Amino acid sequence: MADTISDDALDLIFREARSYNGWLDKDVSEDQVRAIYDLLKMGPTSANQQPSRLVWCKSQEAKDRLAEHASDANKEKIRTAPVCVIIGYDIDFHEELPWLFPHTDAKSWFEGDEDGRIEGAKRNSALQGAYLMIAARALGLDCGPMSGVDLDGVTKEFFADQPRHRADWICSIGYGDKDSIFDRSPRPEFEKFNRIE
Amino acid sequence: MADTISDDALDLIFREARSYNGWLDKDVSEDQVRAIYDLLKMGPTSANQQPSRLVWCKSQEAKDRLAEHASDANKEKIRTAPVCVIIGYDIDFHEELPWLFPHTDAKSWFEGDEDGRIEGAKRNSALQGAYLMIAARALGLDCGPMSGVDLDGVTKEFFADQPRHRADWICSIGYGDKDSIFDRSPRPEFEKFNRIE
Repeated sequence: MADTISDDALDLIFREARSYNGWLDKDVSEDQVRAIYDLLKMGPTSANQQPSRLVWCKSQEAKDRLAEHASDANKEKIRTAPVCVIIGYDIDFHEELPWLFPHTDAKSWFEGDEDGRIEGAKRNSALQGAYLMIAARALGLDCGPMSGVDLDGVTKEFFADQPRHRADWICSIGYGDKDSIFDRSPRPEFEKFNRIE
Repeated sequence: MADTISDDALDLIFREARSYNGWLDKDVSEDQVRAIYDLLKMGPTSANQQPSRLVWCKSQEAKDRLAEHASDANKEKIRTAPVCVIIGYDIDFHEELPWLFPHTDAKSWFEGDEDGRIEGAKRNSALQGAYLMIAARALGLDCGPMSGVDLDGVTKEFFADQPRHRADWICSIGYGDKDSIFDRSPRPEFEKFNRIE
């Protein structure tokens, strides 16, 4: 195994990648969705809690239902994307820890502390969403993450049968249309938001 | 630019990477820290808010101070690491949006809604922490993320002069000692936590 990845690969997943607002008319297959998940699930989460619960909206009907709960600016970004994934989390993720983290009794760490579980589930589910975007880019796809959605509405619409799941944000996935993006926003110098002690 | 990254690169950043508990006696330079930041800052955040405020503890004195606020199981993982970074966030990140997101008046979207800002800052700062770990791995380093710390204590210790910053989690970075890890925890099948609609 190589020690580092190539400059080309760094360009693809970080330096040249952009968030897209519009999409080419080119499908994303179920195999591609599964390949993204097979990578993202390898990323680290606290005690391997894997709290993300993902709904991949691929049919036009599902995307239209999701778009109903989005801000006006986001509706078309959802309807026209090949796939739009809902990144949700399970408040009771600790119930799965006996098999996800078999080394020790991690379930007991989280029992009786729902607020702490929600905080941890949101943090770790966001990590998994970042892995999802990097994985999609690594496989040749583009992403368009969005937080401008009515999360309660999305939760009721898509997690009605999972009363302990909550939607947290959404991300369109496809082949980005380069005409749909603006100039890249500025990035900070190291000193602006970092300190070495 | 290539359309996808190589299998070797996917192994390095996802499939073969592990979270380490112990570290080889090999330094991580300031240049390496800056190279990690130069990649992670390219990752997407909502309205380019870049809410992470990072303190890279590199001196033994800083790592010892940080370890004082960690659970017993984590103290050595901090003290012996070449670098341990505190991933914090700025509750008032919106003050920076006029230059970070110059396309429109995004600052006004967040004014007067501190709870919403904290929620967004935590989510987007977690995304940036995930980019940090992927970037470190891509550059040949290993990570050891930890949430077992007294966050109020770390905030008081390291953000005393930045009263609107909050610590959220920490991550050791270095060259992992393969003797310090357990067998990999199981990963879920797609059907367990995913649904295609």
